[in-house]
Amino acid sequence: MSFGISTTVAGDFDETVEVTKAALAEQGFGILTEFDLAATLKNKLDVDVARQVVLGACNPPLAHGALQAEESIGLLLPCNVVVRAGTDGNVVVEALDPAVMVQVAQNEKLQGVADDAATRLRAAIEAIGSA
Amino acid sequence: MSFGISTTVAGDFDETVEVTKAALAEQGFGILTEFDLAATLKNKLDVDVARQVVLGACNPPLAHGALQAEESIGLLLPCNVVVRAGTDGNVVVEALDPAVMVQVAQNEKLQGVADDAATRLRAAIEAIGSA
Repeated sequence: MSFGISTTVAGDFDETVEVTKAALAEQGFGILTEFDLAATLKNKLDVDVARQVVLGACNPPLAHGALQAEESIGLLLPCNVVVRAGTDGNVVVEALDPAVMVQVAQNEKLQGVADDAATRLRAAIEAIGSA
Repeated sequence: MSFGISTTVAGDFDETVEVTKAALAEQGFGILTEFDLAATLKNKLDVDVARQVVLGACNPPLAHGALQAEESIGLLLPCNVVVRAGTDGNVVVEALDPAVMVQVAQNEKLQGVADDAATRLRAAIEAIGSA
């Protein structure tokens, strides 16, 4: 299985981050964490990698459902959505496929929540792709 | 496979969070993100779950190695370490097993970095368990 749900857009990087946050909010996901992976690596190691930020997206009812099904699911929360510079000036937006939760935890009780989360993330990614 | 590397300690919750951060720092992991899952669910949904915080741990050289092996690895970074209230007043500390990165990304080039990260996280968890 592929582990990301992604789209590639021609927009400006910072603008794409904002469009991504708005599309996630539209699907009930708040951003709980955010870190700039490229800036962290530049700062700590003085290396240059493709510009990228990792957004930690959380839909509270789905997170609650996941926690009721699997007490250790915090290990896979929030759901990461990465905005990164791609080739030719494009920007790639990708979300961790929630099916990964079910696969990794080997817990079928997570299936319903994961399916719901995947539907919402696909809708968000699709909206970003056509913004 | 189990997806967490864990230990259970008899200590105070807040103190265990601090011990966990110190043990991770000892193994080269900084904390890039932190969120209180229980407080988030209480705040958003008014539901009560076991007290727990999710720490996003990052070892910059390992993160850089992982990114060189897999451009989408930001989807699985930073590595989550959860501190949560267990039964009988104990506190559970668990880290996402980095082997999950290799399994989910189906990319064997990640194996070396994942092995190194797992060794370090096991050492940190062991240190917390015997603190």
